[in-house]
Amino acid sequence: MAEPSKELRTLCVNTVKMLCADAIERAKSGHPGAPLGCADMAFVLWTKFLRFDPTDPSWQDRDRFVLSNGHASMLLYSLLHLFQFELPMAEIMRFRQLGSMTPGHPEAGHTPGVETTTGPLGQGFATGVGMALAQRMMQARFPGILDHNVYGIVSDGDIMEGVAAEAASLAGHLGLGNLVYLYDDNRITIEGPTSLTFSEDVSARFAACGWHTLEIDGHDHDQIEKALETARSEKERPSLVVARTTIGHGSPGKANTNGVHGEPLGADELKKTKQTLGWPFEPAFHVPPDVRTFFDGVVREKKRARQDWLTRFEKWRAQDPPRAKVWDAHWQREAPPDLDSQLLRAVGTEPAATRVLSGKAIQAAAAVVPAMVGGAADLDPSTKTGIKGGGSVSRENLAGRTLHFGIREHAMGAISNGLSRYGSFLPHTATFLIFSDYMRPAMRLACMMKERVTFVFTHDSIFLGEDGPTHQPVEQLPGLRSIPGITLFRPADGVEVAMSWAWAIGQAQAPTVLCLTRQSVPPIERPGSFQPRDVWKGGYVVSDGSDAVLVATGSEVSVAVEAKKLLAARGVSVRVVSIPSRELFERQPPEYRDSVIPPTHPLLCVIEAARGRDWCALVGKDALLCTQETFGASAPQKDLASHFGLTPEAVAEKILARLG
Amino acid sequence: MAEPSKELRTLCVNTVKMLCADAIERAKSGHPGAPLGCADMAFVLWTKFLRFDPTDPSWQDRDRFVLSNGHASMLLYSLLHLFQFELPMAEIMRFRQLGSMTPGHPEAGHTPGVETTTGPLGQGFATGVGMALAQRMMQARFPGILDHNVYGIVSDGDIMEGVAAEAASLAGHLGLGNLVYLYDDNRITIEGPTSLTFSEDVSARFAACGWHTLEIDGHDHDQIEKALETARSEKERPSLVVARTTIGHGSPGKANTNGVHGEPLGADELKKTKQTLGWPFEPAFHVPPDVRTFFDGVVREKKRARQDWLTRFEKWRAQDPPRAKVWDAHWQREAPPDLDSQLLRAVGTEPAATRVLSGKAIQAAAAVVPAMVGGAADLDPSTKTGIKGGGSVSRENLAGRTLHFGIREHAMGAISNGLSRYGSFLPHTATFLIFSDYMRPAMRLACMMKERVTFVFTHDSIFLGEDGPTHQPVEQLPGLRSIPGITLFRPADGVEVAMSWAWAIGQAQAPTVLCLTRQSVPPIERPGSFQPRDVWKGGYVVSDGSDAVLVATGSEVSVAVEAKKLLAARGVSVRVVSIPSRELFERQPPEYRDSVIPPTHPLLCVIEAARGRDWCALVGKDALLCTQETFGASAPQKDLASHFGLTPEAVAEKILARLG
Repeated sequence: MAEPSKELRTLCVNTVKMLCADAIERAKSGHPGAPLGCADMAFVLWTKFLRFDPTDPSWQDRDRFVLSNGHASMLLYSLLHLFQFELPMAEIMRFRQLGSMTPGHPEAGHTPGVETTTGPLGQGFATGVGMALAQRMMQARFPGILDHNVYGIVSDGDIMEGVAAEAASLAGHLGLGNLVYLYDDNRITIEGPTSLTFSEDVSARFAACGWHTLEIDGHDHDQIEKALETARSEKERPSLVVARTTIGHGSPGKANTNGVHGEPLGADELKKTKQTLGWPFEPAFHVPPDVRTFFDGVVREKKRARQDWLTRFEKWRAQDPPRAKVWDAHWQREAPPDLDSQLLRAVGTEPAATRVLSGKAIQAAAAVVPAMVGGAADLDPSTKTGIKGGGSVSRENLAGRTLHFGIREHAMGAISNGLSRYGSFLPHTATFLIFSDYMRPAMRLACMMKERVTFVFTHDSIFLGEDGPTHQPVEQLPGLRSIPGITLFRPADGVEVAMSWAWAIGQAQAPTVLCLTRQSVPPIERPGSFQPRDVWKGGYVVSDGSDAVLVATGSEVSVAVEAKKLLAARGVSVRVVSIPSRELFERQPPEYRDSVIPPTHPLLCVIEAARGRDWCALVGKDALLCTQETFGASAPQKDLASHFGLTPEAVAEKILARLG
Repeated sequence: MAEPSKELRTLCVNTVKMLCADAIERAKSGHPGAPLGCADMAFVLWTKFLRFDPTDPSWQDRDRFVLSNGHASMLLYSLLHLFQFELPMAEIMRFRQLGSMTPGHPEAGHTPGVETTTGPLGQGFATGVGMALAQRMMQARFPGILDHNVYGIVSDGDIMEGVAAEAASLAGHLGLGNLVYLYDDNRITIEGPTSLTFSEDVSARFAACGWHTLEIDGHDHDQIEKALETARSEKERPSLVVARTTIGHGSPGKANTNGVHGEPLGADELKKTKQTLGWPFEPAFHVPPDVRTFFDGVVREKKRARQDWLTRFEKWRAQDPPRAKVWDAHWQREAPPDLDSQLLRAVGTEPAATRVLSGKAIQAAAAVVPAMVGGAADLDPSTKTGIKGGGSVSRENLAGRTLHFGIREHAMGAISNGLSRYGSFLPHTATFLIFSDYMRPAMRLACMMKERVTFVFTHDSIFLGEDGPTHQPVEQLPGLRSIPGITLFRPADGVEVAMSWAWAIGQAQAPTVLCLTRQSVPPIERPGSFQPRDVWKGGYVVSDGSDAVLVATGSEVSVAVEAKKLLAARGVSVRVVSIPSRELFERQPPEYRDSVIPPTHPLLCVIEAARGRDWCALVGKDALLCTQETFGASAPQKDLASHFGLTPEAVAEKILARLG
């Protein structure tokens, strides 16, 4: 393609800038500072480097672009529009309006070309690391067919957030040379100059983490292009291009001030800005014909690149049909229809900690689902979540399947979102349930994006014992269940563990959370009418009785079963209900729910070693809650059970007391 | 004091090591690796540097010691015992048992001499930064009387956690030369060698963040002593002493393996270890007389240092009584008894966003409570949480009162825990409610330690509008309310804002959370019988009615009031109840609760723009929930209210439908 003249390039960049300013002005809401400051970098990156085809936003060999400073959303929307993605000008004009394709922050799955949902700072940075890792892991599995990179723009906020520091350290360790971030170093934050809080040497910090770093003027197209070329040619280290920019670049009155970060320029300043840039005041949303023509040419070339790849790809597929089959298995992320029975066989029915039973399910599932990869935040010996035989993922063995995240729970979550977004992996993460608190922002985005990540949390109650209250989850179960779109399983034994994993890998179209015990639990005796897939209904009757209904989950189901025996001896007959997944149970028709938990009943009792208020939505406020309402304590498991009244004996006594 | 012989030093270190190993063995649970690996460093630090008096663990000029790798708790307990804190051998022998003073991880307030609760990695590191900042801020306020440091031991896990990276960056920026961390660089994590996941140059990374770094052999007493001297004499930069150590040092069979991290040595290996160290197999918990004598001498000297300080301190107090008064105000952290009426006057009753009204309350409270300091994670223009007049806290102005945390929510929480633990500050933090997810681990520890931190969260519902679902809290209210010991306020107007702040500063003995609106809310009209302190009961009747009870919080109280008017026009009379703090309401006697929410009533309705299941514990499962069960959307506030059915009209319609 002919090199565009300096004038034409300026015209293009100004088009991007003014589309952003006009859209934000019209919405009376938004963040003009970053789009104006990043337009030069984005223009050079998207025209000369970024590999994509607007007609196929899911092309497997496209470069991924991550806008980690998601508040610059209008920059991305302007680019998507000009580069002819399915984002008409009408949607640009409806920026931040109800039902538009242009929400305040970019939302994956909502707008074609948006690779990941960003806004909460640091998340995009870490998710991009996951995408880059995914590309390297696919490259190792299928050499020679995927040759793209992950590019992104990151802000001061991203650089300051701990999740990005964690992800940067791991990206450097793994040598992700296919990752290139442009750091929008504008020295301005919302409270004022970055010097208020931030005086570290960012280049040196990233170099210490194994990154290749460059420093440029973020408005000089030649410097941007040269830096991106150097970064792209660096294959062994991720690259951070520290680009000195001016926030609100082009706005005569507001550039380089925090006032331009989060509010529209305002009619006067917008007018002055257009004047400065030699831009027509009216009409708003103006795109000069030369600019359209230029982008036509660029897009034509980008489409051609995809066509060339498709030709190579078809040949590549034909060369080796078995390999093509594995390739498809990766991208389809499908499990065999009988996965549940395979896992039931693999897990078996002996007494064991559900984390141990889960380990068996993982091995069996991974053997038939190549897309499965996963690991822990340095707790694998406890969480049992490594994939045996697959080998550890490392710089030297990117074909491995067991991920080692280090003691970096938050990055683990965000990186796994990136692995899932990439499209060819079904990742799982693992740590103790208490540390889910470190991962919540990433888990929330997984729910928003409906990522197929399985979040495994072991040591799921005070019954982990001696480690004490700092490690004993109490509020985490209700806290996680409260995230919209999550499906949480707390399996009671091997059958429920197998079916939980079968759901996560074979059925789920969104994140699944598995909460597993540290301590051993016995297999549950079930009625002959029980079908394993009843577990997928979220709840079912374990054994019937007429005087009360004991609703329990996980390790407390066996407590309920034992309490039932004690109560039988006292002439009281109770029904035991297991609720492996309250979310799935709540999705059942009322008739089914009522058949499991009768709406009218002498006494309803919930047994779960966690805070229990939210159970009242299911069982009413007068139900007997045998739950854990306070922090736990450091002691052996049995002593804790007695101390906190979660033994079969204590539960039976409470029920007898209630029944009078 | 006479320099102890090498033999005596070895004897002391081995005493510490074997106390740890014996206690862990007896408990059949614990982490021997770190105590054995850190014993040399801890011995030199505690004997030659650490300034304390075991008879007064709250001495204001003591050095603070933070064991960030809290799983090494037995190391700390051994030291506390040998240095004659109130921790008898009987408690060492009850390590990790129910009700002992020696829980699995150190718990502040539970064991004399434990400065902060640690275990969740990274928290101790960041909390220590808060303590160091507190010392510097007190030094600036009261020159010449406080001259101590904050020392700590941190592990690989602490160094990998994002919260520590955030805190390290801020500590370097603020030049906290009074902070000295020994990094237990043992190159072993639970999954194996750190090389699995961690290859950054830690010294270079910290140097890039403005730290003074040294590298030593962590078992060489001379190197340890020299490094600590150099670190202590460095006044402008925090110091990180990278100490190369061997995990499980002294255990012939398990040293330098991950097997020694989290399990007892086992009878055989313990025997071999004692053999290697020339230690008697029996009795366990052996402390040689020479060791006792040595520690007697050390403790005598440390006590003398405190006596000298007390003499200086009394003179210093006498010199300037007004100054002494301010000093006491800091350490007593008390507010004037009429703080609530002062704040009510200051806040006023005009319509405004509760975040704006909160800003007024902060200024009024700070004017009479010198211990108040606080700020935001780079959102002050939105959260209105700076203290005017006090000036910004910076390296140059440590006497300031407004904290700038940067875009580091997690460190903000942990640092504020440290400011509160220090004892002379009442810190508040601020960000958007959605970003409370980034801070949960620190907030949980604040609840465990009952820290007097006020966590301010603005933009507390989908009604923040255009920023969209990535920024709109939905599950955060129930998620935060589920943390044991938290008190959350969601005030409806100026009166409730004033009383919420009056509670947080004047009444609370534990963390308070304030959830505030971005949008303006009208003042609530209340009955003549209303007393502002009714707000401290957590809930009260705003206006009476007989056909239904509308329970609302925050911005939804005015929605309920408007809905009541619409319903009145339709001949339906409803009671409106405001619940500014559900936790306080639940602490009221049943008679009061029933007088506000009658137990039997035609219809109960909850109006709150958040997920609502846990309200059923209060209103039952058949109540009408006008809540926000799904993620929000990017749109102007009014459009969101209509779309999600949270307008007075929509609420009134739902109630009419229910009443038939």
